[in-house]
Amino acid sequence: DYSKKDHIEIGVVGGDGIGPFITKEAQRVLEFLLEDDIESNRVTIRNIDGLTIENRAACHRAIPDDVLAELKQCDVILKGPTTTPRKGDKWPNIESANVAMRKELDLFANLRPVKIPEEGVDWTFFRENTEGGYAVGSEGVNVNDDLAIDFTVTTQPGSERIIRAAFDYAQKSGKKKVTVVTKANVIKTTDGKFLDTAKEIAKEYPDVEMDDWYIDIMTAKLVDPKRRQQFKVVVLPNLYGDIITDEAAELQGGVGTAGSANIGKKHAMFEAIHGSAPRMVDEGRAQYADPSSIIKAAGMLLNYIGYTEQAEKLSKALQICSEFEKKVVLTGRSDGGTGDEFANYLMETLSRD
Amino acid sequence: DYSKKDHIEIGVVGGDGIGPFITKEAQRVLEFLLEDDIESNRVTIRNIDGLTIENRAACHRAIPDDVLAELKQCDVILKGPTTTPRKGDKWPNIESANVAMRKELDLFANLRPVKIPEEGVDWTFFRENTEGGYAVGSEGVNVNDDLAIDFTVTTQPGSERIIRAAFDYAQKSGKKKVTVVTKANVIKTTDGKFLDTAKEIAKEYPDVEMDDWYIDIMTAKLVDPKRRQQFKVVVLPNLYGDIITDEAAELQGGVGTAGSANIGKKHAMFEAIHGSAPRMVDEGRAQYADPSSIIKAAGMLLNYIGYTEQAEKLSKALQICSEFEKKVVLTGRSDGGTGDEFANYLMETLSRD
Ligand SMILES: CC(C)[C@H](C(=O)O)[C@@H](O)C(=O)O
Ligand SMILES: CC(C)[C@H](C(=O)O)[C@@H](O)C(=O)O
Repeated sequence: DYSKKDHIEIGVVGGDGIGPFITKEAQRVLEFLLEDDIESNRVTIRNIDGLTIENRAACHRAIPDDVLAELKQCDVILKGPTTTPRKGDKWPNIESANVAMRKELDLFANLRPVKIPEEGVDWTFFRENTEGGYAVGSEGVNVNDDLAIDFTVTTQPGSERIIRAAFDYAQKSGKKKVTVVTKANVIKTTDGKFLDTAKEIAKEYPDVEMDDWYIDIMTAKLVDPKRRQQFKVVVLPNLYGDIITDEAAELQGGVGTAGSANIGKKHAMFEAIHGSAPRMVDEGRAQYADPSSIIKAAGMLLNYIGYTEQAEKLSKALQICSEFEKKVVLTGRSDGGTGDEFANYLMETLSRD
Repeated sequence: DYSKKDHIEIGVVGGDGIGPFITKEAQRVLEFLLEDDIESNRVTIRNIDGLTIENRAACHRAIPDDVLAELKQCDVILKGPTTTPRKGDKWPNIESANVAMRKELDLFANLRPVKIPEEGVDWTFFRENTEGGYAVGSEGVNVNDDLAIDFTVTTQPGSERIIRAAFDYAQKSGKKKVTVVTKANVIKTTDGKFLDTAKEIAKEYPDVEMDDWYIDIMTAKLVDPKRRQQFKVVVLPNLYGDIITDEAAELQGGVGTAGSANIGKKHAMFEAIHGSAPRMVDEGRAQYADPSSIIKAAGMLLNYIGYTEQAEKLSKALQICSEFEKKVVLTGRSDGGTGDEFANYLMETLSRD
């Protein structure tokens, strides 16, 4: 419970590509909203440099040791997008900084809220964030040139904690319904365990309804405006969460519009779910990148550390500015305004009420 | 090449639930279109009974031995939906008949065409159909009560044959573009092999463009009318194919609207991609089930065995009747017409031109 803490350390990680540009704007907004408590030293905002692809490549680590040490000193982290090296491109084959951070800080719950207000859609996805095909040690083997094997890992405690988080939230938020998504008809052992665990936990929450669907039919249901309203809280193993939340964010208006919270027992990290868009930087258009997704993530961070009033204000101001955002900061188009102008406009709006 | 064959054996499998009802209509249409060649004994249509869930449960086999023997005698099979047992329901824990048939008959390529004519969308999905989490021996282990592991298997020959099929089709159809979908940034060994194999094969087809996307962003792209037109031929490992084709079918108008071809070197099986809808049977509404998806599958079958003219006629007639279908055979609603009436109307339309 952060409200009882004397001091809160917020780390801000710029990341790659457009990351430092949009993160800077989000930091300005945080500083604006937390001004008094920064003044009084209750809150410190610390810039953490060095999580760049150049640095990671140079030391051949997903997260350089000194950066990891700094991250571990923070209570909460706001993170810009990081470039994931791909086979065949110029970077060495190191793990995604994102995936590594989730594992190193044990950020087991990935929360992604998605809203389609005009349809009354208000989903909260609870993606398991450390297991499945992403688990430590699941790297797989090339048995020979002809045969490759990968592993999927699901643990009982790992399933339990994310499923319990989803049920707790469903109960407290009054949403009172949890949908479990697996492919337990085929991926029987691991997804079977996840689904069985959910069925057991559901018994402890008699006032929360539970249903379950397979991932294939779930992607179809989300496309259908008549059927998607039925979903409230959705809990999924890592890979399905990865897939479904991108689809859902697109339905909300684009993967660039969603924020994502990565939450563990000791740390929490907040980020935009879009990528680092290196092309925008190459083309000299980085200052036009839309910071609204990472600012939304900053709002989730504020909420998480107990600054709910500020989070609420920010959310309202973002709503007000979203028209402006659509018209002026046309994502990545240099005929619109810059991210800086957007943040200024947002802060003006914030000071008005 | 079926055009050179003296005799073609078509097996028709009713399956479960609404399966026998809709399959019967598709069989009538096949008999109507192949009348002369059935008369002359060039084509035989053979009914294969016994692939019902009751039977499979009784002998505790995904496919009873006698049924499998009969299936193996057919060149091509038209199959109604079969019920997949789920943990917790009344059936024993046997494998999906579908998945078993794909493996037993080595039907390695699952082809699913999806069209959104008003947008100019004309996708053909090539889903690998025997490997990944579906492979023989990938059943997984419960290491102990706390730890479950599943395996994902990708072979070089298995990847090669499906990717080659996709490139061949892209070249011959004039579509000239193949999109490869994986999650090779995380599922590095198996998906990495699939993607690497695709890159190698692409070199043999200099006139076919290739691009690749991760499965998460691909589900998002399909939702966006502005970005989905770029896709033509898409090749994917088994599980991603399962997920994406359901989403795509829904975009076309519902999972009930797509047919699916499962193709191997020796056999081929054609089916609707919707389920067996046991509830419709329980409620006495099975005769109202819409047979158009399995009739589309029958059209794919005709095409495959060289009756391209008949397939073309059928496709046009289905187009003409689709308005009727929407108005009268309201899928599963007993205020519409029956599947039988729809098939009659379709055959009337077929005889008219
Ligand atoms: C970059 C990638 C490894 C990552 C994931 O798969 O988790 C991303 O898609 C996400 O959803 O945060
Ligand atoms: C029933 C199920 C096992 C099957 C699959 O996952 O392949 C189905 O979803 C399909 O797409 O044919």
